[in-house]
Amino acid sequence: MIIIMKPGQEATIQEIEDRLSGKVSVFTHGNRVAIQGIDRDGLNQQELQAAERIIENHPTAVQGSREFHPEDTVIQTAHSLIGGDNFTMMAGPCSVESLAHVRKMAAVAKAGGATILRGGAFKPRTSPYSFQGLGEDGLKFLRQAADEFDMDVLTEVMDEDHVEMVGKYTDIFQIGARNMQNFSLLKAVGKTNTSVMLKRGMSATIDDILNAAEYIAASGNTQIMIAERGIRTFDNKYTRNTLDVGSVPVLQKLSHYPVIVDPSHAAGHTEFVTREALAGVAIGASGLVVEIHDDPAHAFSDGAQALKPDEYQAMADKAFAIRNLINPAVKVVDA
Amino acid sequence: MIIIMKPGQEATIQEIEDRLSGKVSVFTHGNRVAIQGIDRDGLNQQELQAAERIIENHPTAVQGSREFHPEDTVIQTAHSLIGGDNFTMMAGPCSVESLAHVRKMAAVAKAGGATILRGGAFKPRTSPYSFQGLGEDGLKFLRQAADEFDMDVLTEVMDEDHVEMVGKYTDIFQIGARNMQNFSLLKAVGKTNTSVMLKRGMSATIDDILNAAEYIAASGNTQIMIAERGIRTFDNKYTRNTLDVGSVPVLQKLSHYPVIVDPSHAAGHTEFVTREALAGVAIGASGLVVEIHDDPAHAFSDGAQALKPDEYQAMADKAFAIRNLINPAVKVVDA
Amino acid sequence: MIIIMKPGQEATIQEIEDRLSGKVSVFTHGNRVAIQGIDRDGLNQQELQAAERIIENHPTAVQGSREFHPEDTVIQTAHSLIGGDNFTMMAGPCSVESLAHVRKMAAVAKAGGATILRGGAFKPRTSPYSFQGLGEDGLKFLRQAADEFDMDVLTEVMDEDHVEMVGKYTDIFQIGARNMQNFSLLKAVGKTNTSVMLKRGMSATIDDILNAAEYIAASGNTQIMIAERGIRTFDNKYTRNTLDVGSVPVLQKLSHYPVIVDPSHAAGHTEFVTREALAGVAIGASGLVVEIHDDPAHAFSDGAQALKPDEYQAMADKAFAIRNLINPAVKVVDA
Amino acid sequence: MIIIMKPGQEATIQEIEDRLSGKVSVFTHGNRVAIQGIDRDGLNQQELQAAERIIENHPTAVQGSREFHPEDTVIQTAHSLIGGDNFTMMAGPCSVESLAHVRKMAAVAKAGGATILRGGAFKPRTSPYSFQGLGEDGLKFLRQAADEFDMDVLTEVMDEDHVEMVGKYTDIFQIGARNMQNFSLLKAVGKTNTSVMLKRGMSATIDDILNAAEYIAASGNTQIMIAERGIRTFDNKYTRNTLDVGSVPVLQKLSHYPVIVDPSHAAGHTEFVTREALAGVAIGASGLVVEIHDDPAHAFSDGAQALKPDEYQAMADKAFAIRNLINPAVKVVDA
Repeated sequence: MIIIMKPGQEATIQEIEDRLSGKVSVFTHGNRVAIQGIDRDGLNQQELQAAERIIENHPTAVQGSREFHPEDTVIQTAHSLIGGDNFTMMAGPCSVESLAHVRKMAAVAKAGGATILRGGAFKPRTSPYSFQGLGEDGLKFLRQAADEFDMDVLTEVMDEDHVEMVGKYTDIFQIGARNMQNFSLLKAVGKTNTSVMLKRGMSATIDDILNAAEYIAASGNTQIMIAERGIRTFDNKYTRNTLDVGSVPVLQKLSHYPVIVDPSHAAGHTEFVTREALAGVAIGASGLVVEIHDDPAHAFSDGAQALKPDEYQAMADKAFAIRNLINPAVKVVDA
Repeated sequence: MIIIMKPGQEATIQEIEDRLSGKVSVFTHGNRVAIQGIDRDGLNQQELQAAERIIENHPTAVQGSREFHPEDTVIQTAHSLIGGDNFTMMAGPCSVESLAHVRKMAAVAKAGGATILRGGAFKPRTSPYSFQGLGEDGLKFLRQAADEFDMDVLTEVMDEDHVEMVGKYTDIFQIGARNMQNFSLLKAVGKTNTSVMLKRGMSATIDDILNAAEYIAASGNTQIMIAERGIRTFDNKYTRNTLDVGSVPVLQKLSHYPVIVDPSHAAGHTEFVTREALAGVAIGASGLVVEIHDDPAHAFSDGAQALKPDEYQAMADKAFAIRNLINPAVKVVDA
Repeated sequence: MIIIMKPGQEATIQEIEDRLSGKVSVFTHGNRVAIQGIDRDGLNQQELQAAERIIENHPTAVQGSREFHPEDTVIQTAHSLIGGDNFTMMAGPCSVESLAHVRKMAAVAKAGGATILRGGAFKPRTSPYSFQGLGEDGLKFLRQAADEFDMDVLTEVMDEDHVEMVGKYTDIFQIGARNMQNFSLLKAVGKTNTSVMLKRGMSATIDDILNAAEYIAASGNTQIMIAERGIRTFDNKYTRNTLDVGSVPVLQKLSHYPVIVDPSHAAGHTEFVTREALAGVAIGASGLVVEIHDDPAHAFSDGAQALKPDEYQAMADKAFAIRNLINPAVKVVDA
Repeated sequence: MIIIMKPGQEATIQEIEDRLSGKVSVFTHGNRVAIQGIDRDGLNQQELQAAERIIENHPTAVQGSREFHPEDTVIQTAHSLIGGDNFTMMAGPCSVESLAHVRKMAAVAKAGGATILRGGAFKPRTSPYSFQGLGEDGLKFLRQAADEFDMDVLTEVMDEDHVEMVGKYTDIFQIGARNMQNFSLLKAVGKTNTSVMLKRGMSATIDDILNAAEYIAASGNTQIMIAERGIRTFDNKYTRNTLDVGSVPVLQKLSHYPVIVDPSHAAGHTEFVTREALAGVAIGASGLVVEIHDDPAHAFSDGAQALKPDEYQAMADKAFAIRNLINPAVKVVDA
């Protein structure tokens, strides 16, 4: 149940929280209160009178819903604003390979307009015999490169045991597609104050994504963005995944979280990355997260989908131009 | 086998055709000859010497391939150019409902920049008890409306028995998604001189589409465009289909046919149509085919996905603006 | 609306038919009347009183539904009973290759317990350059072989122009997966008295299949069986399609038509065909349709999925044994 | 590279291990040695002479492959043999609800022939607000019930932090579908001596499953079984997932691990569970894992898919009968 309170009912909201917290889940946002497992019969007379409207038929993922939180979430990090009418470029190598290399990539990323440097130190690889990442050393290199260029860090955390350690180096935790329903990990990052980019699982429905995000929110952290990175369909012969651009406006309608498009993992082949990136911008994504490499043939991982510096720069120029053209994006949310 | 001839070998090409036609399939395009079922051992000494290069490992759908036909196909109808660096808007009602109504819609379509008027007279409906279209009357209304506004007609033909009759009214045959592998129909439109828009089947792979197009080409008609209209995936709760924008550059790389995006059937809900349309433009489609209606709630079919006139106009303005920005689209074809 | 009449209301049923036929669709089955596009307000007082129960919320594909036709449809051909508690083996080569060959295959099929001989004379091939079948000659060979062994013929019809001709030779029309929503063809076979095997499209939902079958029934022919032959999913690397065995009891619950399993097209590789066949039997299919060949390496089409005679015999023995063990199959239909 | 040694080369195998261990991954099985990242050029003359055959083109998931380990893995727990020609029934409630209830269910499971008692104490639920399991108390109840009926315990472990604790109570770790690519968890159970049931992810390909299993094996634990529990497809309206029975023989061909079918999560509705279970047996699965409940309407989780005691007993009787009929299952592995 979501209760939309009449103006000036702060005291009542506090009373509801005091009365019910610890017994059931109670979340508040402005003049709205979401309560799990209780319906209007569980409210007393005074509380009922303080309510302007009660929404009983709301999504399970209530904190992520527009019914509970109508306005866009805008995430603020040291160097970036993500969501709302902002557009954020995030770029970097798939894997952190060395300090020198990640610095070089940071310079490229920054030149193209990126304010966030991505890079993997712990890599979720399909095979146990593939390169698994540089670990904490990689995080140090990534942090140092980002600091040098006044950028924020985005990097993946793969399990709850590493949340504390990775948290020392990153501004934004990335939860990878394969871990989208690793609920223990979601709860663990939910207990931190660090922003989270939740990547859509390969066959995660829209409802699955929003429920996964809700695990993070339910643990206390609502600084969440969602990344569409392509889904599995019946034909992934020519592209690695199928970019589901249509999910962007759907997610934006249902939820207030920023939605980012990752054209690199969707396309899987450099020649299609720019085109998919521009589609993501045109449909109204709040940003892009893109893999770059100066020598893709020798990249430690996923070289086949990396943009080279000049390709990245050209893509970024077009992306910002399209964004300017459509900003503000056509709203799909009812007024 | 595709033989790329040295310059000035027109006579040899003619000799090959004379020698092999009737025995095996022989197709020519400029200085290229495609022969089915024969490899280089089937060529005589003179023919071998006339060849600059022989490509033995080419796609099954050879006529549609870039190996056989490197440059873009540009389709010319009375009022439109489709393909190459052109961008073509196609719009109209899902079903032709009456002469008055289709005229009204033609005016709207034209105002938004459309040169092609779409409308269904024979409707492939999931249920036999749904409205099946006005039939030949619908075609007459559609033709009259298009002529009045100097537009071309695009309409669906559902079976080979109707090819001749529909052909009297239309400039472009539409083959619907459900008929994409109705090979008898493909062969029938392949024997005409009328252009064909082949819509991708709900679960057709890229190779399936190109092979279906090849049925048309093998029957003699190469004026083909392909329409991406969304595919079936594991999540079609919020959108009717999943717009596979990534298929656009893939098809453009593999084949020379124009690729059109249909955001109406992909999105299935008006609120998402404009956004998906813009994604289609940004990724480099050669055009859009969009459903419009002035009173969607009372449309004979698919009202839920129709743009109202003002929505269509706003979409079209943004679409042309994005197209101007990215034109020429980033090429995915190797030089 | 489905009206379940009280006993002895034959006259009222006749009156309803007389009053409404020609205006709307009216179908009768025993004491049940299905009317399209009219609800209970369209009935007069006497008709309402004759009704024991009125079902307004029924599937679109009303004639195929258990609500309209509770008992199993049993199809009777000269040599076979299909549906109900019967189990029917259908076997034969993918393509009819010659009279001698199809006779040889008929002998093998018969020895394994088949009463229906399958074989293709018109072949829907992905590529226009693949073998397209022997045409009418193939049908003659197939008919002759079947007659010699007292078997029925099952063969594909690909378009409405061939319905009459194919109908002269076959006992059961096969509608292929690619034509499942070729509505013109469905209507054409619906106007004949010949039984129809409707194969599920590659991405057809359960509702799609039942609506496709309804096109046949709405045209007057209710002698329909449905064949599950595998669907498209995200992983068809090791099998050609994904056998959706779970669709068998679902279809049997919702509809009264016999459901047949085709393990050959599902598995796509001989080594898995028998195993998938047995799964189909165990889940309660009314029969199997299986491709056999004595020399798969030289088959005109689909040799990779053909069972050799001894493999077929061993499979058939196990299939009948499992069927005996589970017959009658566990009912999923409410009493 | 897999080296198949000539007979009597134990000393050479030992030398290879001594020489390479610590530098690259070396695994041995009988007279076979698998080495990662080195090809035949990395062997010395004596080693090359000791080799009967060297397989360089093998699956990435080498330890799971038949090339490395030709014979079936048979897992032995206190009360069960799993794999090979054995057939193992596993049953129990979705969630452990209380000691009394799980004891009752254990009695039912045992009566139907189960030797393994399944039950969830840590539940991976789509929504954070759903029942998350009884935790360690649940494990205690489950262990006690299993011991009383001389059964083994199968229960899910959701994260690496719980591996040690859950390991104190269970005989077999279950890795849930959502965690199939939670590589940290796979490595953690791979370091134990406890058997593992790895459930297939919702959109995991066959290769994905085998690589996930390889993470466990690469960490030292090869007592692995794989469970097919249904995949996501375009139509999950009537069943919760699509049981991919065809994956059973494919997995058995490629790998030596036992393959178990879970018809409960596949079907999702009680009425279809028995039918899907029998399909799983007929196709040759090494066992079934089935959810049972005496009062499904009040189950803590997944009541809709639980078999009631009498339904379970009837299913189990048919399952064992079919298994007897087809045992040994038709082999898909080349001799």
